[in-house]
Amino acid sequence: MRIMRAEQFGLKREVEYGTPEQNEAALRIVADVKAEGDAALLRYTEQHDRVKLDAASLRVTQQEIEAAYDQVDAAFLTAIREAAVNVRVFHEKQMRTSWMDLQQDGTLLGQIMRPLKRVGVYVPGGKAAYPSSVLMNVIPAQVAGVPEIVMVTPPATGGKAGIDPYILVAAAEAGVKEMYRVGGAQAIAALAYGTASIAPVDKICGPGNIYVALAKRAVFGAVDIDSIAGPSEIVVLADDSADPAYVAADLLSQAEHDEMASAILITPSQQLAEAVAAEVERQLSTLPRQEIARSSIDSYGAVLLVDSIEAGIDVVNQLAPEHLEVLTVDPMRLLGHIQNAGAIFLGPYSSEPVGDYFAGPNHIIPTNGTARFSSPVNVDDFLKKSSLIYYSKEALLANGDKIMTLARHEGLEGHARAIEIRLEKERG
Amino acid sequence: MRIMRAEQFGLKREVEYGTPEQNEAALRIVADVKAEGDAALLRYTEQHDRVKLDAASLRVTQQEIEAAYDQVDAAFLTAIREAAVNVRVFHEKQMRTSWMDLQQDGTLLGQIMRPLKRVGVYVPGGKAAYPSSVLMNVIPAQVAGVPEIVMVTPPATGGKAGIDPYILVAAAEAGVKEMYRVGGAQAIAALAYGTASIAPVDKICGPGNIYVALAKRAVFGAVDIDSIAGPSEIVVLADDSADPAYVAADLLSQAEHDEMASAILITPSQQLAEAVAAEVERQLSTLPRQEIARSSIDSYGAVLLVDSIEAGIDVVNQLAPEHLEVLTVDPMRLLGHIQNAGAIFLGPYSSEPVGDYFAGPNHIIPTNGTARFSSPVNVDDFLKKSSLIYYSKEALLANGDKIMTLARHEGLEGHARAIEIRLEKERG
Repeated sequence: MRIMRAEQFGLKREVEYGTPEQNEAALRIVADVKAEGDAALLRYTEQHDRVKLDAASLRVTQQEIEAAYDQVDAAFLTAIREAAVNVRVFHEKQMRTSWMDLQQDGTLLGQIMRPLKRVGVYVPGGKAAYPSSVLMNVIPAQVAGVPEIVMVTPPATGGKAGIDPYILVAAAEAGVKEMYRVGGAQAIAALAYGTASIAPVDKICGPGNIYVALAKRAVFGAVDIDSIAGPSEIVVLADDSADPAYVAADLLSQAEHDEMASAILITPSQQLAEAVAAEVERQLSTLPRQEIARSSIDSYGAVLLVDSIEAGIDVVNQLAPEHLEVLTVDPMRLLGHIQNAGAIFLGPYSSEPVGDYFAGPNHIIPTNGTARFSSPVNVDDFLKKSSLIYYSKEALLANGDKIMTLARHEGLEGHARAIEIRLEKERG
Repeated sequence: MRIMRAEQFGLKREVEYGTPEQNEAALRIVADVKAEGDAALLRYTEQHDRVKLDAASLRVTQQEIEAAYDQVDAAFLTAIREAAVNVRVFHEKQMRTSWMDLQQDGTLLGQIMRPLKRVGVYVPGGKAAYPSSVLMNVIPAQVAGVPEIVMVTPPATGGKAGIDPYILVAAAEAGVKEMYRVGGAQAIAALAYGTASIAPVDKICGPGNIYVALAKRAVFGAVDIDSIAGPSEIVVLADDSADPAYVAADLLSQAEHDEMASAILITPSQQLAEAVAAEVERQLSTLPRQEIARSSIDSYGAVLLVDSIEAGIDVVNQLAPEHLEVLTVDPMRLLGHIQNAGAIFLGPYSSEPVGDYFAGPNHIIPTNGTARFSSPVNVDDFLKKSSLIYYSKEALLANGDKIMTLARHEGLEGHARAIEIRLEKERG
């Protein structure tokens, strides 16, 4: 693992946004499903997933979900149930209530919070299907009060229409009652515009392949979408007090995600830098996903030397990492200075997988520097606000002239007259 | 104004998203400013705004701002100051605080709220420059605690570099300290990527022409952007108790915005329907912007008859209007049933201009049915959240095995080992 001065480092990852051909293909699928509904949905499912379905077999049955429970092992079920409780408890604390401001003159102003009515969660098929991500997408929507949460996930390829039982169980545990075996851009289009079999939703979330991402972008506006995630990142900020083996293990747990992942140690300690670099080598040699992790470490990994922990925080704030671990003597002292980081893990026992799987905070976190302006998935993502204005007669009589002044300045005489007609009548 | 049964109505407006040529032009400007900085910024300003500036003259000076105060009339200043106070007070009630959950085993979990560091507000030039919109964009950012708020607005065309004094005063009153006389796609690119003269921001908001909208879309990801607004809409839900003259005036205050605006009355009362249609005609005849308003009413306006107020609410929820006025005997009774509306105005004195200019809630509200899933501009738009995880040794020892079970199920052995290495060492 390369060791360098922080000033010499420039993290640049070109994120894949799809080729023009991929974009065209995604747009065609979306347009066809929008126009033809189920017919196109089933046709593309046969074409891309090599599974021939009919409209009646799109929906996952209660029997399949029950059968899935028989296939998952008990330790998994115990763990995912406890994780789901933790995620639910944490997100319940994010919940907000409508409020009203009652003014002296009888006017009521307020902000009304309402859940979205119907949300679609996309769960990718194959190796990219993570039960933990099902919880992280579904539970915040459920806590927000979304009454209809729909999961779509591709049928297994090769003619069998089975879905990973662990995904079905995770979805059922999270509270999903409506699941469909469709994937790809065609599933996104069905969620956005609706078909005879699948009613349209208000928001689509969850990760997918490039066609799914391009389809989500195409339907944005008709429905809301979540952000499109880039490769995962960790920054560890550490001083001499950190255990090099812990730091190395945490860096590798990020690097094993994919070749584009980024794992960076920032430290003022040359000694820690060298010890971690050695530990990374040592631990890499026995890691099952060692090829992926090594490629990530070589391309996007680094140990960055800084003059002080404070200087390290400046680098953190510039990088705005998805995950930040702080392994220093007194990490809470630094918290107030951390401006930009999606999730902050403090102290030696807050290894990133604790947050990925179990503690409760969401593991879907802004990547690629976007923690500067965006947030982990949270209950607000499934709430919308409406303003409430109940203006009193007294308030209108007192303020009508000022409102007319502002409207007339902007050349909007119709606005002024809507006030004037009331003032004339009410003043008598 | 046409009167029809609600079932016969289908509101369809094709919103302009720009031609391929416009898109290409916007992308070229963005790329040039990203590559060349001030040189391209000044070149495009000369080309499009016909104003020759140099880097030193981009920023609006304190003297200009002071001079602007001498040019605005006193009634305007009084009204906009009071409006600014109301907007600030309302948005302060939206402010949120970071929180922590302290668990029995010593674990701390939390959600940290932080303002964005730097926000750019675009203010269009010419007739589309509304001082009220400056307040509505700037004040929520300021209330959120954004330390740097930058305004950009095109220089006046025709060789003069003056900016509308009302815009300068509104910005100064809202608390903007940094203003630049640049507009168009080049201003958006400068805000997103920075130039020698203008430091880059984290988020860009505010309306603009099609090139501005396309440039905002192009820079999204590098920075955050607000949503791209469609034409304005009002739905009035009214019963026999409503004054037809008030309803007509409110419909026209929306219709005068532009030809694409939509003004709809929903009522169970045939009598009100006819009276409002007649009043619209009567009031239209003396309205200065009568041509625009008539075109809007003819194309997108309607009186929709329903069987009951409850049936009217169903139509409202399908339309998800930007503005909803409820002029019924007891409007508060209906509030709980309104699922989708950006801003809800209750009772005869809550004419929409009250909210457009003065009451306090934001007047930048989701259009085109997007109130189904999005919200008026609010303080949350300028806050980002970070998760906090401070896991205790006790918690890790108790839960480590479950975390490893979940990680191993997902094939992420490196994640499991980051836990395992700690368990082995800490368990001794």
